[in-house]
Parts: sequence; C-alpha cells; structure tokens
Amino acid sequence: MVGVNQKDIRVGMVGYKFMGKAHSNAYQNAPFFFDLPVKPVKQAICGRNAEGVKEAADKMGWKSYETDWRTLINREDIDLIDIVTPNNNHAEIAIAAAEAGKHVYCEKPLALTIEESAQMLEAVQKNNVIHMVNFNYRFAPAIQFAKKLISEGKIGRIYHMRALYLQDWIMDPDFPLVWRLEKSISGSGAHGDLAAHSIDLARFLVGEIDEVSGMMKTFIKKRPAVADSSGLSGKASATEFRDVEVDDASIFIASFQNGAAGTFEATRFAGGNRNSNQFEINGEKGSIKWNAESMNELEVYFADDDPSLQGFKKINVTEEVHPYGGVYWPSAHIIGYEHTFHNLIAELMKGIEQGVSLSPTFYDGHAAQAILTAVEKSARSRRWEKVDTYL
Amino acid sequence: MVGVNQKDIRVGMVGYKFMGKAHSNAYQNAPFFFDLPVKPVKQAICGRNAEGVKEAADKMGWKSYETDWRTLINREDIDLIDIVTPNNNHAEIAIAAAEAGKHVYCEKPLALTIEESAQMLEAVQKNNVIHMVNFNYRFAPAIQFAKKLISEGKIGRIYHMRALYLQDWIMDPDFPLVWRLEKSISGSGAHGDLAAHSIDLARFLVGEIDEVSGMMKTFIKKRPAVADSSGLSGKASATEFRDVEVDDASIFIASFQNGAAGTFEATRFAGGNRNSNQFEINGEKGSIKWNAESMNELEVYFADDDPSLQGFKKINVTEEVHPYGGVYWPSAHIIGYEHTFHNLIAELMKGIEQGVSLSPTFYDGHAAQAILTAVEKSARSRRWEKVDTYL
Amino acid sequence: MVGVNQKDIRVGMVGYKFMGKAHSNAYQNAPFFFDLPVKPVKQAICGRNAEGVKEAADKMGWKSYETDWRTLINREDIDLIDIVTPNNNHAEIAIAAAEAGKHVYCEKPLALTIEESAQMLEAVQKNNVIHMVNFNYRFAPAIQFAKKLISEGKIGRIYHMRALYLQDWIMDPDFPLVWRLEKSISGSGAHGDLAAHSIDLARFLVGEIDEVSGMMKTFIKKRPAVADSSGLSGKASATEFRDVEVDDASIFIASFQNGAAGTFEATRFAGGNRNSNQFEINGEKGSIKWNAESMNELEVYFADDDPSLQGFKKINVTEEVHPYGGVYWPSAHIIGYEHTFHNLIAELMKGIEQGVSLSPTFYDGHAAQAILTAVEKSARSRRWEKVDTYL
Amino acid sequence: MVGVNQKDIRVGMVGYKFMGKAHSNAYQNAPFFFDLPVKPVKQAICGRNAEGVKEAADKMGWKSYETDWRTLINREDIDLIDIVTPNNNHAEIAIAAAEAGKHVYCEKPLALTIEESAQMLEAVQKNNVIHMVNFNYRFAPAIQFAKKLISEGKIGRIYHMRALYLQDWIMDPDFPLVWRLEKSISGSGAHGDLAAHSIDLARFLVGEIDEVSGMMKTFIKKRPAVADSSGLSGKASATEFRDVEVDDASIFIASFQNGAAGTFEATRFAGGNRNSNQFEINGEKGSIKWNAESMNELEVYFADDDPSLQGFKKINVTEEVHPYGGVYWPSAHIIGYEHTFHNLIAELMKGIEQGVSLSPTFYDGHAAQAILTAVEKSARSRRWEKVDTYL
Repeated sequence: MVGVNQKDIRVGMVGYKFMGKAHSNAYQNAPFFFDLPVKPVKQAICGRNAEGVKEAADKMGWKSYETDWRTLINREDIDLIDIVTPNNNHAEIAIAAAEAGKHVYCEKPLALTIEESAQMLEAVQKNNVIHMVNFNYRFAPAIQFAKKLISEGKIGRIYHMRALYLQDWIMDPDFPLVWRLEKSISGSGAHGDLAAHSIDLARFLVGEIDEVSGMMKTFIKKRPAVADSSGLSGKASATEFRDVEVDDASIFIASFQNGAAGTFEATRFAGGNRNSNQFEINGEKGSIKWNAESMNELEVYFADDDPSLQGFKKINVTEEVHPYGGVYWPSAHIIGYEHTFHNLIAELMKGIEQGVSLSPTFYDGHAAQAILTAVEKSARSRRWEKVDTYL
Repeated sequence: MVGVNQKDIRVGMVGYKFMGKAHSNAYQNAPFFFDLPVKPVKQAICGRNAEGVKEAADKMGWKSYETDWRTLINREDIDLIDIVTPNNNHAEIAIAAAEAGKHVYCEKPLALTIEESAQMLEAVQKNNVIHMVNFNYRFAPAIQFAKKLISEGKIGRIYHMRALYLQDWIMDPDFPLVWRLEKSISGSGAHGDLAAHSIDLARFLVGEIDEVSGMMKTFIKKRPAVADSSGLSGKASATEFRDVEVDDASIFIASFQNGAAGTFEATRFAGGNRNSNQFEINGEKGSIKWNAESMNELEVYFADDDPSLQGFKKINVTEEVHPYGGVYWPSAHIIGYEHTFHNLIAELMKGIEQGVSLSPTFYDGHAAQAILTAVEKSARSRRWEKVDTYL
Repeated sequence: MVGVNQKDIRVGMVGYKFMGKAHSNAYQNAPFFFDLPVKPVKQAICGRNAEGVKEAADKMGWKSYETDWRTLINREDIDLIDIVTPNNNHAEIAIAAAEAGKHVYCEKPLALTIEESAQMLEAVQKNNVIHMVNFNYRFAPAIQFAKKLISEGKIGRIYHMRALYLQDWIMDPDFPLVWRLEKSISGSGAHGDLAAHSIDLARFLVGEIDEVSGMMKTFIKKRPAVADSSGLSGKASATEFRDVEVDDASIFIASFQNGAAGTFEATRFAGGNRNSNQFEINGEKGSIKWNAESMNELEVYFADDDPSLQGFKKINVTEEVHPYGGVYWPSAHIIGYEHTFHNLIAELMKGIEQGVSLSPTFYDGHAAQAILTAVEKSARSRRWEKVDTYL
Repeated sequence: MVGVNQKDIRVGMVGYKFMGKAHSNAYQNAPFFFDLPVKPVKQAICGRNAEGVKEAADKMGWKSYETDWRTLINREDIDLIDIVTPNNNHAEIAIAAAEAGKHVYCEKPLALTIEESAQMLEAVQKNNVIHMVNFNYRFAPAIQFAKKLISEGKIGRIYHMRALYLQDWIMDPDFPLVWRLEKSISGSGAHGDLAAHSIDLARFLVGEIDEVSGMMKTFIKKRPAVADSSGLSGKASATEFRDVEVDDASIFIASFQNGAAGTFEATRFAGGNRNSNQFEINGEKGSIKWNAESMNELEVYFADDDPSLQGFKKINVTEEVHPYGGVYWPSAHIIGYEHTFHNLIAELMKGIEQGVSLSPTFYDGHAAQAILTAVEKSARSRRWEKVDTYL
C-alpha cells in the first residue's frame, strides 16, 4: 500500500475513555523508548459519539475516526483491533475482528461470561490472528523480576500467595450506578475488575489454581441511577435509586495445583487504599512482596542469607540489570502506571512481528475467566469449586 | 493469715518456659508501673522437673516451688492459679483450680477442644472465681486505642477485616516435632497458636463471627521426632521421622454477624515474617492497620479528612492521651511485647479487686474455640460452617 | 511562514544524551496530556557527531538535525533553544541564543560560575526572550502541593529544612573520570549536580538563604582517565589515573532570611541511595517530608490534629484535587520521573504564550548559583559566607 | 556486713524523676533477664523533698531514702552512686562520691562544662572507682549489632554519618521555662540533651571527631517562667515571661579523624518527631540506618550483593544470633526503650565485678563534652573549631 511502511502496525481502537487514553499513550511512547521490530500507528479510533471521538482523535493523535466499529474492522488499512470498550462489547467485537483477519488486543476481563471467553479464544485461534489480553500489571518491571526470581528457583517451592486489590472509590452510598456497577455491562463488580488482575498475577507467578471457595459482598444495596440514559457517564440521578447487582467485594481462598495456598481479596470498600494491587508470596527459599502503588519497588527475603542479616530488602527495580533496565531512566528515577502499557505494547509488537501470540494471550484471559466463574459459583453453592470444570 | 497483706494476690503458676517467663516478668513489673489496687505476689511456681523448676523459681523471683500442680492448687497461700503449660493440660488444671476456689488465669488457646473449653467455662462460673484467658495482644496500647476509635464511631460501619498472623520458625523440614507440633499436646498447629490471637482481636474489634469457610495446610508431612521422651525439648532425633498431624497454615474467610467480611490467615511458613501479627480494618468512615512487629504504631485513615489530605497516618501510640499513656515512658520511647502482659495483669488485678471477671474471660476463650472448631469442621466438610453450632 | 501553525513552538535542542531523552519525551507527551495554548514541535536536534545526532533524531522523533549549534540558533524555523549539553557550554549557547532572539530553556546548574550565570541572566533579560532553567523537581505534583500547603499557611513559620540528595554511582574507585567528574566541564561534582536541586527546592519552598557554612569532600582522589579523548563517554583507561578535582560530597548548614535553619547534604557516596532527593521541613503548624524515589507520596504532619491522632500521614498526591490531578491517571496509578518534565514543558509553553518567563527562570538559576558559590567559598575560607555577596 | 550478699551491689540513687524511674526499673529487671555476676540492690534513693522521695521509694521498690545526698554518699551500705539529677548537680555529687570511694554511674550530659567533666574524670580515676555515663542508646541491640558489622569490616571505610535527634515537645510558645530550658541548670538545650546522644553514637560507631562548624538556634526567645520557685515542675506562670538562654536546635557539620564527613542536627522543633534519634552511615561496602522510634530494626545495605538484588534490608534485630539475643523474647517479639537501661546495667555490673570501667566511661562523657564545647565555640566564632583543644 502506498505510503505504508511494512513495519507499521496500523491500530484501530474501539473506545476512548480511561483505557483508551492509556493505550493511546503507549502507542506513542513504546516506539520512543524501545527499538521495536514493527511500530504501532494510531490509524483510527472508534466511538459511537461522533463529536466525542473526533475530539479524542485530535487530542490523542489518531489519524482518523469512525463511529461504527464494524466499519473500523473492515477497513483495509487496519491491522490490529484494540478493544477498550465496556466488558459487554468485548466478545462481539473481538470475534468479528478475528473473523476479519485482524489481530486483537482486548481489555480485561476478557468477557462477561466463560462461554463468551471460550468463543473468543476459539475465534482468534481459528482465524490465526495474534491475540493479547491487557493484563498490564505483568509488565511492571518488578513483576517481571519476581517472575525471573521464581523461575530461577530463588524462591523455591511456593507455599503461600496472598493477593489483595484494594480500592475505595465507591464507598460513598450516593456514588451512582455507573457502568462498572451495572451487571449487564460489566458482568461483575470488584470481581472482574480487580480480582481478575490478582488472578492473572497468581497464574503468572505461582501457577494454575485447582479449586476455590469464595464469597461476594454487596455492602450498599441501592444506589442512585445515573442521569443519562447510556449509563456511561457518572452524574447521579437525584430521584431514582436502583438495586446494585454486582459485588462490592470478592474474596476467596484457593488451592493451587502445586499445593500452594492462596487468599484473594478484591474490594472497592477499603478506605484509604486507592489502587492497592498488592501481594506477598512465601516460598521455601524466600518471599516476595509488591504493591502497585509503589510499583518500582520489590521487597524480597531470602532464607539462606546469613542468620543475623535476614529481613525483607527493598529493591528499586530500576537498574540496568533489571527487566526493562536501560529502556527508561537511570536508577531510581522511577516510572509509573503507564509504562506497564508501553512494555506490553512492545511485547505485542514483538509477537506480531514473530507471528506468535505472546502471553498474556486470550487463553490467559479465558483461564482467568474460569477462575472468576468458579469463585462466583462457589459463592452461590457455598462450597469449594473446581476451576477445571470451566476450562 | 500472718504476714499476708490483704492486698496481695498470691500467684501459683503451673509451667515455667517461654510463657512462664513472660508472666513472671509481668508480675514483677505491673506493680512498678501501675498503682494497682491489689498486687500480685510470686508465691509458688510448679513444674514436673524439680531441678528445673527450682532454678526457674530462683531466676524469676518465685518464693517457693512445687512439682505437683494438685499440691499447688490446694495450698492455702495461693489465690490465683496461672496456667502456662502446653494446651493439653489447661482443662484439667483450670477446672481443678476453679473447684478449689482459686481464681484462674490461663494461656490461650483455652483448650484442646470445644468440649473442654465449655467445661472450663462452666467450672469457673459455677465456682464463682475470677477467670481470664491470655489474649495479651488486646492489651497493646494501639489495640486499646483502635477499640476506642471503633467504639466512638470513628470508623463507622465495618466492611472488612483482614488479619494475618505470619511466622516462619518451622520452615526447615528438619525442624523436629516439638510439642507445638504434636496434635495430642497442642491440639492444632498455627491454628490454635496464631489464628486464635487473630480471632480474639476480630471479636474484640469487629464483633462476633457468623460463619466460616476454611482450609488447613500441612506443607511438611513428616518431621524428625524429638530425641527426649517427653517431647517438650527441641532436639531432633537423627533417625525417627513421624507424621505431622497438625496444620502448618490455617486460612479462612468469614462473615461477621454485622455483615463485615473477614479473611484470616495464620501460618508458620511465611518466610521473613517472624511474628507478623497484623490486620487491617476498613469501615465506612475510616481504616485501621496494625502489626505487632511495630506494635507502638497504629495507622489510621479517615474518609472525612480534607480530600487533598487523605492518607494513612502513622500514630506512635505512646502519648499521655493514649491508652496506658503516662504509665511507661515519654512519647515515642517505645514499649515492647512484655508490656502487653503488664497491662493484662493490671486488668486482672483490677478484676480481682472488684470481684468481676474482666475481658478477655473464659467466655472469650470459649468463643474463640468455637470459631477455631468451626474452621476445622469447614476444612473437613469443604463448605461454610456456622459458628453458633459450637457455642 | 508557510506550513507553520502559529501555535507551534519550534524547538531546537543542543545535546541528546540522558537529558536530551528526557526533554524529547516531554515535548512528545506534554501535548498529549495537557491542553496546551501553544505546542512544542521537535524541529531540530544538534550534536557534534553527525551519525550520533542523526540516530537520535530518528529515534526520538526530531524533524531535522544540525552538527553546529550556531547554525541551529540562526535557523529561522526555531523559536526555542533547549540546552542539554554539559555545563561548560551553557553560557555561550544561551547567550548566543538570546542574542538571536530565541527563547531559552537550559539545564541546571545554569552555569559553571556565578559570573557566567550573571551574564546569562543579563542576556535573556536584555533580549527580552523567555527563559527557564530545568529545575524539574519543582514540578513533581507533591512539590507543588507542598508549596500550596506552605503558601496557605498550613505549615506556619518554618523552623527547619533538612535536604539530602544522596546517590552512589561513583563509589567504585575504578569508576572513571567521566565529564561529570571533570571540573573544567562540569564545574563541580555532587555540588552543582545534586545540591543545586536541593537549593532550588529550598528557595522555592522555604525562601532565600542568608548565609552558609560548608565543606566539600573528595573521598577518591585519583581515578582512571576515560579512554576516549572527548571525555564524554565512560570507558575507563587501564593505565592512566588522574586527579579528581571535583567534590564527591557537598555538605553545608544555612540560615534562611526568615530565620529557618537549613542542613544540606549532596553526595555520590551514600551506598544504597540511588536517587534519594529528599527533604523534611518543620514548621510551627506542621511538617512535610518527601523523597523523589517515591515521588508520588508526600508525608505531612499537622500540630493541630487531635492530640491522640497526631502523626505523619502519607498522601498519594494523585487525586483530582492535587496539582496536575486529572492530567494523568486515576488515583494512585502513579506517575514517574519523566512527568516532572512534562509538567515543566507545559509551564514553559504557558509562559511563552503569555510572554512571561515563569519560574524557575534564569534568575532562579543564578540565585542557586550564588548559593553554590557561597558554599564553595565557605569551604575554602572555613567560615560562614553571605549569599548576597554573589547576587 | 550482716545480711549482705557479697554479690550485691547496693545502689544509692540521687534523683527520682523520669530518669530515676528508668534506672529503678533497670535495677529490677536486669537480674531477671541476665545471669549477672553481681546484682544491683535498690538500697537507698535520695531527693530533697522528703514526701516525694518516700513515695518514690515505695513505688519503685527502694529499701530506704535520704534527703541529703551527702548523707547518702557516706552511708557504708552503699556501693554505687547513681546520679539522675539535673545536670548542674552532676559534678559536685560525682566528685564527692568518687572521693568517698563509691562507684559512680551518672546521667548524660556528664557535666555543664568541659572544666567540670575534666574534674569528674580526674576524680574517678584518682579514686580508682568504677565509672559509667548513661549513654543508654549504645545498648540498643541494633546499635551493638551495627558496631559489630562495622568492627568486622562489613561496612568498610566510612564516608558519611548523618545523625538527627528530632523532638517537638516545646514547640508551643506557651510551654514554660522548665529546668531543661534553664541554662544554669541544664547548661544547654537540645545540644546537651539530644546532640550528646548523637555524638556518643558517632564516637562509638565511626570514631573521633576532628573539627566542627556549628550553629545554634533559639526560635522562641521568651517563655513563661514556671510558677514554683524551684523551677523543676512544669506549671507556667501566667504573668512572667523570661528570656530563653538555651538553644532550641543545635546543628553542626563535622570532619572525623578518619576522613568521614558528619552532619548533626538536634532540635526540639521538628513537629511530628517525638523521639526520632536516628542516623545513617554510608561506607565503602555498605550502609546502615537506624531510628530509636523503631529501635528493634536496623536497615542495612551491602554493595557486594548481587547487582539485581541490592537495596536496604530491614532486619528485626531480635534473633538469637543478635546482641542480647536470647535474653528477652523470641524473634520479633520486640523490646523497648527501657531495655537499653537493662543492658547497660548488666554491663555496669560486669565491670564492677571485673574491677574495670567499661564503656561508656566518664572519659566518653568527657570526650562528648569536648565536642559539645567545640560546637558551642564554633557557633560563636563562626568558623571551624578543633575538638582536641578541649580534651
């Protein structure tokens, strides 16, 4: 095609709010920081509201815009479809994109249901397109470094993982029923939004989960409806209150296939915790702690340190020797949330160039969905549930 | 009685190891720091090994010693029996002491089984003696202050408690089967030893637990037997390995009667955590964090702080205005583990003087036992269990 | 001019190493995150090595390149000269740029000597161009928020500032004499590189310094010369050792004009501290602590909190209500080092559009130079020195 | 003497307020925790106010009391004089005690002036009595462990010590002129009270100080006089304001004889810091951080750790392998402020039994006084001053 660099991967992104901003920024910065084999181009952005999407395109540097995602998918000048819409649209768009032969990069949780995620996985596999799900926290340097330590045997057999994802943004009972609180749009509350991240980190770092016992809590049972009909903006209606159908908190205990014990807690009711995506892993030879709010630091403990010198060490994972070392700034000149996206995009581009779907793939999205599903089932059945049932 | 100050409470203590040392030190220091209405006197200490108990008596300032606890209980110059033996002796001694009309102060967990704790509670109530169980962490100033904040409504409706008690002292597979790992002596592993403390703090600060779903893990299945026949000392046998019958870790999720969600984890396999008895409570109006390893500090968050000034505040709970303020040292001249015992003894003495069993009583010990029992049941039944069943 | 958006500010940058990367990234991201009144355009980059500068231009998205800064300055399509060269070139380039009528944005420390900085200030003022010096840490949201608290009187009369800038990258005696260790190129060691930042924060937050008493230490007296003749790359020569003429550490005490006491320490020999640019300010009504390594957090203490609830509070300065709130990501989705540059560029663009040199101007650079000079003088005279002497 | 165990060291203590309480508690607990070769006996306590001293004797377990320290010193049943009076009485009592052949244990700072401390040192040496000055922080296990690490060469050549002792108890301008603010009684303000501790830790851990440049600040120039004539109690007079003659803050920079650079800051005006006696030491091979407010923890960094695993490690210095390990409680069952006194008393008793004055001796007290004196001189002369001048 005239004017197209064969090394350009032309992205069409559906959606343009919070996640759209994060993805757009990553497309812009990944080529700046990395020597990418192929480079993303912000070709077209898509949203239902013409005015809104045009403004977003201008602000975030997209070359064109569409108001119908089906049109976007069928554009010949699009190589990769990036889905940053609310969860209830993921499956339809992703499947259509795969069938149109486009690579697909989708926000998490992959789907509303395990049935949907299974279909999505089947679609990308059948159509042989590259696929990735946006478990961006995997790409924090500290997480990659934790993975390395575990893979090299530095932690040994793992006994425990306790993972928390604590937020507090909806504690006000007058906070309205925005789309993330609408079951038909988001599928669940803290469960799919937050626990999904913890689950992916657990699978990435510890291994597959065998079974779970969980509970889900909705502390505020009724909330103001949102004033606009779409339910996507956040203004509360003064008069109408509606039932909250999603969880405020999702809590479960788990057994991993390798015998480790897991405790998981995701909540939007942990006052003072704005984005505390944290965990601790305890193994035979060492322990690891991390918290996204200070994401550049990894705390490690090694049992074979001199007995008088044992303790948790706080490592600023920004050295040349660390994952993504040298990509950004000198030691302890810290990076932030958005860099997890830059790193993920670099990985996605590498995968596209190599023709391989690198992790986290739609399989990872589907596997996480199976665990989410088993927990939901357990919360209803009030007993332990096997994850394999849903895979 | 000649030579006895009516204000002296003459203590007879059964056992003299780690807890015996802590209790002995508290008897010595409580009168130094507090203006006690009645004062404990280290009258007699009791242990089966004559040489050992004599040495302990000398070292720790006890006036006399016995080698048979029944003799001790029947001595007329004893007012209070303090039980610091392994768990399997608690019930028999406590019941006999109560029947002999002695006040009883007993280590936790109160008993091996819920049946035992019920009998113990009945005995002290029927015989109308003062009773207390040694949930010493309640008496950390930070915990008393947390209680005050909660009682005053500063935290509001509680949504979450997550409590961890993490240790790592038996992670070496060659660590032997000492009495704390012997089911017949200790009843359980981390469960009764550590989770019991978390459970008491949960009941004290949040309220009664309605139901639980738990799991118990034994990571190391066989360990060296101890070389000596009593099983109380710690030398490993080179040749004999025996099955570990107690849990290395006890993990459960819970619903409180007030609707709060609880997650509990007690383990001896969390490398790098030596005595990390910690929790976080999230309420409608604020949050609280605490860790026994830095027990003088309480972290608090208040939702009604100015929006730009919200965050966790670290309070060094050593001011005159704090619980036990003025008893010890000036601000931020910190106190330690042993002071929780001093404070508890002061409370026990106050109760004896007033003729009232102040908390934590044997009822508190029994109620904790009911939760421990429900968790054990749940770990076997693999479903949620009601706590009330056992009360 | 054809094809030029009047709202474009066409930048010509001299130098392209570490700081060149940071500046380039900021030109790219400031318009993405901010609604800028005028936008920077990466027009031309300049360096002596044609191959190197061409590669840098491609990688970092500059439209053209030059190998002679005089040519760059005289290009009509350049509005702003950005100086990221070693310190010994700042004065000559800045003065020439100002005389050519270009706005000037210069790295810190502004100059090698107080004479140079005075000339630079005179040049930008006489030629009426916009000028800014790159004290980027001012633009960390936490620093802006600290400034706001102080300005609003929340801290009250300030008694103390203690500021440390601790690094450790040259502790190895075999680390070579790179340009930052060459007196003729950098002017000083830790003094101009690190103390300059602390000094600017002190002036910004506390006020003008009246007098100083300082010492400068060079712990490693000889180091390997660098292998290449330019002295700009970092390979050590195996054979030649040369005297180190700059300080490894710069330490001074200070009196502010408002009566506050200051202690300052900048060093490259504080093992384990990679980029610990930190300070604590104590005032009549409150205290503030900050460390660049966890730059999203500001710790604050207020003396008028309830006596039982006093302590340092850790605020994650990423809320909508905070400086730069809403520009980046949701609460506690942290930002990093590079964002201080984005924020500064937004300020610079605002100044250019308004025709005003916003702080930190060349005056701020010169005032910092006066303090640096007084400290150097004091280290030689071995007595207190007045800062005003040099202004 | 009848009824006296030759292993008893009969203590006569002059003074009975804050420090009297700490010392009394240590006499009681040192024999409980340690196997002491000789044991302290609380023989007699002395104070001018008969009622007050009698009450103190009862409360703190002293066998008898005196109202005239000269009588106390001459009692045959006293072996050791412990001086916990305000500073202006130290010299007279200590010299008289030494001349009476009693061992002497004295609070810090040793004296009001360098002349006094020289005379005190001469007196104890001439009369050949055991002497110790109460630099109790040396006896925090973490400090002993830091000393061990340094002595073993684990930190290597030391480049930096920065020591802060931050308090905030007199920040209220209405806080009255208690004895600690009276120059005639206390000699100085934060300087002798707080900086003295930092100086002793510096000498203990880093070595002798060669020269200093300092400043002293008095932020609040006038304060209410105290209502009672003695000036020892704390009630403010409503009407009379008097000049504050002591420093609120003492700040100095220093060169150690071994070439290390020191920064020292002691203040009572650092809001939010209640008892923050802290320091960081940076050496060739590692770094050490400590803060008395979390005195059980020592942070260490080692430059020879694996490059990817470098960082500060937080060690809970409560293991069997640590100094005083096994004396108190199991790992991470923390100890507090008072235990530094227990440990010091154990050392003092060991010295008495061996007939040797163990550190910190009166020489250490005198050497600290020389540094205090040099700093005061420097604050007046406004130039660097040599410490040796005063030794």
